Amino acid sequence: MSSKRKIINDPVYGFITIEHSLIFNIIAHPYYQRLRRIHQMALAFLVYPGAVHTRLHHSLGAYHLMCNALNELKAKGTIITPEEEVATKAAILLHDIGHGPFSHSLEHQLIPNIHHETLSLQIMQAMNEDFNGELETAIDIFTDKYPKKFLHQLISGQVDVDRMDYLTRDSFYTGVSEGVIGYDRILKMLIIHNNQLMVEEKGIYSTEKFLVARRQMYWQVYLHKTVLAAEKMLVHILKRVKLLYQQNNTDIHIKTGGLLDYFLFDYTNVLDKKALEQFCKLDDADITFAVKKWSTHPDFVLSQLSTRLLNRNLLKIKLQSEPFNTSQITAKMDEAIEKLAISPEEATYFVFTGEAKNTLYKTSDERINILFKDGTVKDITAIDAPLIHQTISMPVKKFYICSLT
Amino acid sequence: MSSKRKIINDPVYGFITIEHSLIFNIIAHPYYQRLRRIHQMALAFLVYPGAVHTRLHHSLGAYHLMCNALNELKAKGTIITPEEEVATKAAILLHDIGHGPFSHSLEHQLIPNIHHETLSLQIMQAMNEDFNGELETAIDIFTDKYPKKFLHQLISGQVDVDRMDYLTRDSFYTGVSEGVIGYDRILKMLIIHNNQLMVEEKGIYSTEKFLVARRQMYWQVYLHKTVLAAEKMLVHILKRVKLLYQQNNTDIHIKTGGLLDYFLFDYTNVLDKKALEQFCKLDDADITFAVKKWSTHPDFVLSQLSTRLLNRNLLKIKLQSEPFNTSQITAKMDEAIEKLAISPEEATYFVFTGEAKNTLYKTSDERINILFKDGTVKDITAIDAPLIHQTISMPVKKFYICSLT
Amino acid sequence: MSSKRKIINDPVYGFITIEHSLIFNIIAHPYYQRLRRIHQMALAFLVYPGAVHTRLHHSLGAYHLMCNALNELKAKGTIITPEEEVATKAAILLHDIGHGPFSHSLEHQLIPNIHHETLSLQIMQAMNEDFNGELETAIDIFTDKYPKKFLHQLISGQVDVDRMDYLTRDSFYTGVSEGVIGYDRILKMLIIHNNQLMVEEKGIYSTEKFLVARRQMYWQVYLHKTVLAAEKMLVHILKRVKLLYQQNNTDIHIKTGGLLDYFLFDYTNVLDKKALEQFCKLDDADITFAVKKWSTHPDFVLSQLSTRLLNRNLLKIKLQSEPFNTSQITAKMDEAIEKLAISPEEATYFVFTGEAKNTLYKTSDERINILFKDGTVKDITAIDAPLIHQTISMPVKKFYICSLT
Amino acid sequence: MSSKRKIINDPVYGFITIEHSLIFNIIAHPYYQRLRRIHQMALAFLVYPGAVHTRLHHSLGAYHLMCNALNELKAKGTIITPEEEVATKAAILLHDIGHGPFSHSLEHQLIPNIHHETLSLQIMQAMNEDFNGELETAIDIFTDKYPKKFLHQLISGQVDVDRMDYLTRDSFYTGVSEGVIGYDRILKMLIIHNNQLMVEEKGIYSTEKFLVARRQMYWQVYLHKTVLAAEKMLVHILKRVKLLYQQNNTDIHIKTGGLLDYFLFDYTNVLDKKALEQFCKLDDADITFAVKKWSTHPDFVLSQLSTRLLNRNLLKIKLQSEPFNTSQITAKMDEAIEKLAISPEEATYFVFTGEAKNTLYKTSDERINILFKDGTVKDITAIDAPLIHQTISMPVKKFYICSLT
Repeated sequence: MSSKRKIINDPVYGFITIEHSLIFNIIAHPYYQRLRRIHQMALAFLVYPGAVHTRLHHSLGAYHLMCNALNELKAKGTIITPEEEVATKAAILLHDIGHGPFSHSLEHQLIPNIHHETLSLQIMQAMNEDFNGELETAIDIFTDKYPKKFLHQLISGQVDVDRMDYLTRDSFYTGVSEGVIGYDRILKMLIIHNNQLMVEEKGIYSTEKFLVARRQMYWQVYLHKTVLAAEKMLVHILKRVKLLYQQNNTDIHIKTGGLLDYFLFDYTNVLDKKALEQFCKLDDADITFAVKKWSTHPDFVLSQLSTRLLNRNLLKIKLQSEPFNTSQITAKMDEAIEKLAISPEEATYFVFTGEAKNTLYKTSDERINILFKDGTVKDITAIDAPLIHQTISMPVKKFYICSLT
Repeated sequence: MSSKRKIINDPVYGFITIEHSLIFNIIAHPYYQRLRRIHQMALAFLVYPGAVHTRLHHSLGAYHLMCNALNELKAKGTIITPEEEVATKAAILLHDIGHGPFSHSLEHQLIPNIHHETLSLQIMQAMNEDFNGELETAIDIFTDKYPKKFLHQLISGQVDVDRMDYLTRDSFYTGVSEGVIGYDRILKMLIIHNNQLMVEEKGIYSTEKFLVARRQMYWQVYLHKTVLAAEKMLVHILKRVKLLYQQNNTDIHIKTGGLLDYFLFDYTNVLDKKALEQFCKLDDADITFAVKKWSTHPDFVLSQLSTRLLNRNLLKIKLQSEPFNTSQITAKMDEAIEKLAISPEEATYFVFTGEAKNTLYKTSDERINILFKDGTVKDITAIDAPLIHQTISMPVKKFYICSLT
Repeated sequence: MSSKRKIINDPVYGFITIEHSLIFNIIAHPYYQRLRRIHQMALAFLVYPGAVHTRLHHSLGAYHLMCNALNELKAKGTIITPEEEVATKAAILLHDIGHGPFSHSLEHQLIPNIHHETLSLQIMQAMNEDFNGELETAIDIFTDKYPKKFLHQLISGQVDVDRMDYLTRDSFYTGVSEGVIGYDRILKMLIIHNNQLMVEEKGIYSTEKFLVARRQMYWQVYLHKTVLAAEKMLVHILKRVKLLYQQNNTDIHIKTGGLLDYFLFDYTNVLDKKALEQFCKLDDADITFAVKKWSTHPDFVLSQLSTRLLNRNLLKIKLQSEPFNTSQITAKMDEAIEKLAISPEEATYFVFTGEAKNTLYKTSDERINILFKDGTVKDITAIDAPLIHQTISMPVKKFYICSLT
Repeated sequence: MSSKRKIINDPVYGFITIEHSLIFNIIAHPYYQRLRRIHQMALAFLVYPGAVHTRLHHSLGAYHLMCNALNELKAKGTIITPEEEVATKAAILLHDIGHGPFSHSLEHQLIPNIHHETLSLQIMQAMNEDFNGELETAIDIFTDKYPKKFLHQLISGQVDVDRMDYLTRDSFYTGVSEGVIGYDRILKMLIIHNNQLMVEEKGIYSTEKFLVARRQMYWQVYLHKTVLAAEKMLVHILKRVKLLYQQNNTDIHIKTGGLLDYFLFDYTNVLDKKALEQFCKLDDADITFAVKKWSTHPDFVLSQLSTRLLNRNLLKIKLQSEPFNTSQITAKMDEAIEKLAISPEEATYFVFTGEAKNTLYKTSDERINILFKDGTVKDITAIDAPLIHQTISMPVKKFYICSLT
């Protein structure tokens, strides 16, 4: 045991214990500390005032569940070396290190075409240099190059500790009891068979509950229409800012004076070392500060959207399973043009449609292996459990329209 | 009842119900929405990662407890008119509206010599104009000018809903179980006698628990030494910034480009209408953004303190009951001068002493009236309950030293 | 408001408040106090050691939810007179008054062919005499003769407070988190439309969760195979006792010396006043005492089954969707005959099959009306929510075999 | 790891894991299963309807905390062999095996002059024979003969897992939040120094909270006056039964027909093997059944007390710090004599006084060693923490009077 041993209070799990110097060093790294300043659930706090927890807190929580999962597996006889253990813990701690400000809401807005997992990997590699290669194994596990496949599956799979923590934590902080899962029971049901992570037979109901909870959180929280409206407003604010800058790059009111300027105005879509370093300093405060600044910008569209977002005076939003027809959209547009005395082009910032896709939660490859007492393995879809089939085949797309009324 | 009726998810109490249009309008007001962007516990999240809840959330929670308290009192026969009810609810919603960025940590730093309750009152008066005088009664209750004294006592007294909520909420979000109180039991024990708020006899143990919990939160959380160090670093950062500006008011790196500049560099200690309006737009993001900016400032002291605060690389702190002696301080100073190659004057930003006072929680006037079954009223200190006496006479001052090691 | 006002600590809801003298008198009545001595979940404590809560506690809990439900409905403008209010509360308090020892496990064993709800009604009528007709309206509501149909639906319907409490309480006491429901949210979503209890549109997900939770509790807890085995053993013990008494009614070891003797040996299937009075004194202690006594009875079958039940040395049980075939049963029988050196007739007490039916939870008439914002009403099955369809069409029958190994 | 591995749902801690065959065998033993039928908190359920949990559940909970405590200590470098580990777990599982029906309420009533810990030891020794000496080390630890003293201190000391579990569990089941302790934090603060169990310096506040919680549970729950009245009524029932039997040992209405008869009428105060075996079959059902039977006994005193206890129609009780004076007692006696038309001797069963002593919770030897970071050890009373001093010196005696009104 290390002489350094620290416990961190966590309202969700009680205490989180840190014991290894590599884990300490990761947590102390400025790139990791940055996650304190990024909301886990982006703008969801506009609907759920308690949902202000951070990416740092989520990754600490996932680390805690990983500690428990590894202990359970070792107690069941799975061989996991101390080196593999610390590497897996390091990997889960860092799995979200690539998230930018407001997480999913702004993904692809600042760094186009690069998924946050790719960014996580690049940042892990940069930190690996700082740590003289100590993160090598963690990176192999993260990228699924490590032979013990189940270690990767604990980080990223259908019953990984990432999902277990975010469902548990997000339902805790929102107060939405529908998302509560029996994470402790699921952890106790995990088992390794043929180098694969599986769930024991008697864990079927808990797994079912886990899938149902995810589905409920998806519709009640993650794609809550008001949250969606706020996020789309933020996206439109950035779009407007970029346009205004293209039209007049000497406008002193458009620059924030901070790191955001680089990604809004200078970034050339080449994620070189410098860009990565800049990115590792960006956080929610850069965005919030900018929106506050833009709320007094001379451009009506920009100031209006910014002021509305700040004061939670959001656009109205409607969700439905079918696309909205043109006449509906036109009517809303006309209304905006008249009410706000703006041009049709400007009105597109207040009236717009789109699709809400369940992009956060992949439904392809939704395979969970169940290990039966008699040694057989069945895919969970092959089990007589209709709830599971339904949650797996759930619709993943809805259409929305945002407008003034 | 209003046709508008809204419920808000709260992880602490389940649901908070909003029913009256005045309450809706207060919550929708930009001045109130600003509280979303102010941490309830300032920098405590550096020690308790879950403690990122906001002033808005706390005041909503206090409002919820007030709704319950008023219902209990009415069920016990106390006459409270609908107008008084909504005014009391409005007053508790707004009781913290005067808090600035990072709440208590920065109190008196941006607006010297004005207590946050005075600011709350001024902002309430400004809002009262917007609301055509609808807040008149609320203001009378807040300022204790309303004849039914117990309404004020519910907002600000020894067993008020403000304290009940912050103890409950802060212990919930920090995960410090020692701060858990039986708020629901205390609420059920409240009773009005001679126009005063009292606690029924059988509520003595819950009240005792309430006082003990406050004491425990005080030492374990509110004056946690690491939190204290972080807050003092932030104060020193602002102090340095002001000095640098005095020395060179053309330094473009010192200005943040935001609202903070006004209070750091232009505010003349006259809280006129304009100043108040500016204040009502300030929030934590202004400070965080500024600290990030200053972390690359040419001045070593400023950039060093800012970088350390951002990355949670905090100064070491020691607490004790006696003042630190000069030789200890000198040794720490010498060390800083040598280690950082700075001047003695600069070293005072890294090595400093002070007193941690229990300023948040007045111990004077710590009087709680207990109403006995036989109709007699006793001050709680006159009761044979030694724990209460001890918590009331608890020490309120400790001395600290911050330094590099 | 009554001058008598009492609060009862409840670990599930915090506090339960009693305010009306009729409610006090019901709770103080010996027939109600008897429910303290009847486990809510019969023998489920053999699997879930925490599940030792009582019928009294459940009915107090349902009463508490009823208080909240009525308050919510009144806040939404539904007219409910004080008399209707107390009558509805009385009815829910008494809804389970007809439960006998070990509740559902022994239903129809002691009083054949009479459902516990019929017994509840008869006991309510007997109490109504004691109370000089004060329960008249309560009985009308309980039997659905009262014009305001929604009051009955709150007691017995698809989203009644009975179900809300038992799901919440049973999952609390078993520790099975899969049964947790958002009862407070559902209560806030209830609304009366056309004299019918309905759920508001935005309560669809909570209702879905409620149905899923019921399904999960059904399979994980209420029909847990080990609990089923224990309950069937108890039924077989009583069956054996009756047979032995038929064979020899002078056997002094078979009589318990208590109230149970009447129902085992003397009751003539006529539920007259005397029988009802006797029934109202029976509780779990009568059964437990008897089983302890029979554990030393000379008859091998009786003493063996009794000893095994007491010491939790239960018969093994297997559940499957298809009936067991004869050869399987014969093999198990032969084994028992040989192992225990008993006759084939005696072996039927150790090896037997049956069907586990979801009798506790009617799936017919599983209709929940949803009231949409535009005023339309839809049956929940007409809504695009596949989980609900599945939980409604869930299988209700499994086959079991109990045996020695 | 054993191939047998079982998890038990516990609403308090989530899951309790059983891994060792000795632990399995203890739990499966009829003497241990008997604890399922003994309420942990005797008659406290008459005030706290949720408090119906059992001795079995408490000892499983203490076992769970012991597992965690041992893991923490091993993680801190304390050497504990696998044999010592399982022995300590066995000892805590069995620490309450000597409790009789209604635990503390009836202690010394059925087996006079023998403390339940002595009975626990004797039963452990009997079980040790069944287990071929496998309990040898467990017994040594239980009796503090084992060299590693801290193992005994974990079972029985000032911060033992027994107390941690009962405070946690009793406050959970009663719903009295004042008894909540931070058991997980305390466990993490335990440390072994000089072969003694100590608490780390930073655990001082949690320890303080633990002591305050005990004090609060003591006055609010364990010595709740209504519970006390009920328990004293039960003691008086047994006293009356014994007297009646002495007067007429052929009275067929006085015998229960069960195991209780032996201890009430035949036991000669010699706890031989036979007596111990009988004792190991006694449980709450024997008492409840008897009280029900006696509720119709011809003797007025007996039937009256029994009926009142069953129906929760309890004697009134008054508590005060000074003894009651004779005139008060005489007045109450006269009233009973007149009201019930009974003799003065009979009236002593309805009017009696006594002392409520804190016998459950020893305050002597209330010493907790704190290990400071600098290696010094201080008794907790030597620490500047006034709350602790007060809770340690709390009064341990109150006087009560029971009577009709």
